[in-house]
Amino acid sequence: MHDLIIIGGGPAGLSAAAYALGKELDAALIYERLGGKVGWSQSLAAVEAERQLPGNEVVRLLQLRTAGERGRMIQDRVDLVQPLEIGFRVVTRQHGTIDGAVVIVATGASPLQLKVPGAQRLVDHGLGYSIRTYAHLVHGKRVAVVGTTPRALRGVAELARVAARVFLIAPSAESVQTRTANALRRRPNVEFLVGYDVAAVLGDDRLTALRLEHNGRALELAVEHTFVDLGLVPNSTMVHDLVKRDSRDFIEIDRFNATSAPGIFAAGDVTNAPVEQVLVAVGDGARAAMSAYDYLLAWGLASTLGQERA
Amino acid sequence: MHDLIIIGGGPAGLSAAAYALGKELDAALIYERLGGKVGWSQSLAAVEAERQLPGNEVVRLLQLRTAGERGRMIQDRVDLVQPLEIGFRVVTRQHGTIDGAVVIVATGASPLQLKVPGAQRLVDHGLGYSIRTYAHLVHGKRVAVVGTTPRALRGVAELARVAARVFLIAPSAESVQTRTANALRRRPNVEFLVGYDVAAVLGDDRLTALRLEHNGRALELAVEHTFVDLGLVPNSTMVHDLVKRDSRDFIEIDRFNATSAPGIFAAGDVTNAPVEQVLVAVGDGARAAMSAYDYLLAWGLASTLGQERA
Repeated sequence: MHDLIIIGGGPAGLSAAAYALGKELDAALIYERLGGKVGWSQSLAAVEAERQLPGNEVVRLLQLRTAGERGRMIQDRVDLVQPLEIGFRVVTRQHGTIDGAVVIVATGASPLQLKVPGAQRLVDHGLGYSIRTYAHLVHGKRVAVVGTTPRALRGVAELARVAARVFLIAPSAESVQTRTANALRRRPNVEFLVGYDVAAVLGDDRLTALRLEHNGRALELAVEHTFVDLGLVPNSTMVHDLVKRDSRDFIEIDRFNATSAPGIFAAGDVTNAPVEQVLVAVGDGARAAMSAYDYLLAWGLASTLGQERA
Repeated sequence: MHDLIIIGGGPAGLSAAAYALGKELDAALIYERLGGKVGWSQSLAAVEAERQLPGNEVVRLLQLRTAGERGRMIQDRVDLVQPLEIGFRVVTRQHGTIDGAVVIVATGASPLQLKVPGAQRLVDHGLGYSIRTYAHLVHGKRVAVVGTTPRALRGVAELARVAARVFLIAPSAESVQTRTANALRRRPNVEFLVGYDVAAVLGDDRLTALRLEHNGRALELAVEHTFVDLGLVPNSTMVHDLVKRDSRDFIEIDRFNATSAPGIFAAGDVTNAPVEQVLVAVGDGARAAMSAYDYLLAWGLASTLGQERA
């Protein structure tokens, strides 16, 4: 049995693994893709290099350390986590089951995709899913936001600081009747297109416009950037039977990154804590590992160095 | 008026500043010492280089960015934070008052010092205040822990994994009657010295022994490392009238790093969240800045780029 199993290879999971290996715990990291979101969307622009640096450093550090014998990195998908008398059994797709005294869930959240022609092709070429990360790229540009989640509305406020013009595409009036929305639509460079739907994303190498539909009529809106925020879905299904989740299935954690199930910790975008930024995910991953280690120490479960565990 | 005033130059404050500058907010950082604890205790050993890397990266990043015009770094001590009709007035020792729409408190906590002959002189030469950071240095060594806080007892458990022998110096029996303490004293390589006080720390260039007193008699205990944990005192006095604190004066924060006072955020060791590690402080500092930015956006207080504020 490992001391610790970490599920997820994004910044939170990697940071947890780096901490655990620094403490010479016997840790296994099970990941589908190393670097998580850092690996794709954050490679968008050179200007992002410094932003992803801490995440990259953690990856590098981890790779150095897993050269030793105590860490294991396993590329696989986790279907289920089951409680044992002591510890947990993690059921993987291809590597059978792996047992650990404690588990950290750092599986992230996936944005709901815009499913219209052109959308997938132009991701990272003018179309993005994270306003928080890319708002600084739109200085003086025309920008559209698709979605009316609180996160989307907050994003409109951020974009309005720097963009020439911000269009919010809102399918219905009901979705934009909050105090925030009403304050936003009074800004001189913000326009709400209420009752509009996105029919297609247009552009060859880069996004150049959106095709919209309104009352059965089609029109084109010329924009240089489009941000989609239709909501996030946490990747928490493998622990649905074990831990308390909020109404949207994000895992509830306390300030120690502990879940409602003793011995299961969580960090990053899969939790109900606000994360979104690489640095925040790295910090929360480290704290989850710190708390997991404290839990192992308190219950006498941490492996002793120089000895093999049964 | 600045958008944001950050008080504290440790990892949490620097990380908050880096985030704010990345978002082109008008931020002022008021610090007494850059790098915080990272600047001193973490320079102990070369082996620590990789651990302090993320903290160092943030410092470097910040210094690059404050070369621009929107950031201000002010070396000074803050005596008081006062509420204004909108925003806050920060009273400094030497730079008068500085106003900001929001404030982040990241002033850290100070460990209570061991006040016996030799203690101050041998800090970082065998005597330390953070077991969590240095436990890996004591492989196969004889180690003493001075203090009976929960943090000290947790430290004994961690040290017992790797050290040859761990002595806990406990002035009274009452202080070591918890479940954790009882489990610990049964470990083969742990010894509780109950009713003992530390009279002096001995050693020329490095700590070699502790002089103890027990029932009026003096004796020497040969150890290679000693960790002191007599408790931490948060540096929170400047906001005592404004924010809710726990029984030990740590600032209470929610999961957004918001305090009980709207517009005041806090991060790092000054809060009631478990931090201690550089990476965790960096993450929490970034989250505090993210929440502060959301607050500025929600209330229309964030400066617009290319314009000067009144």
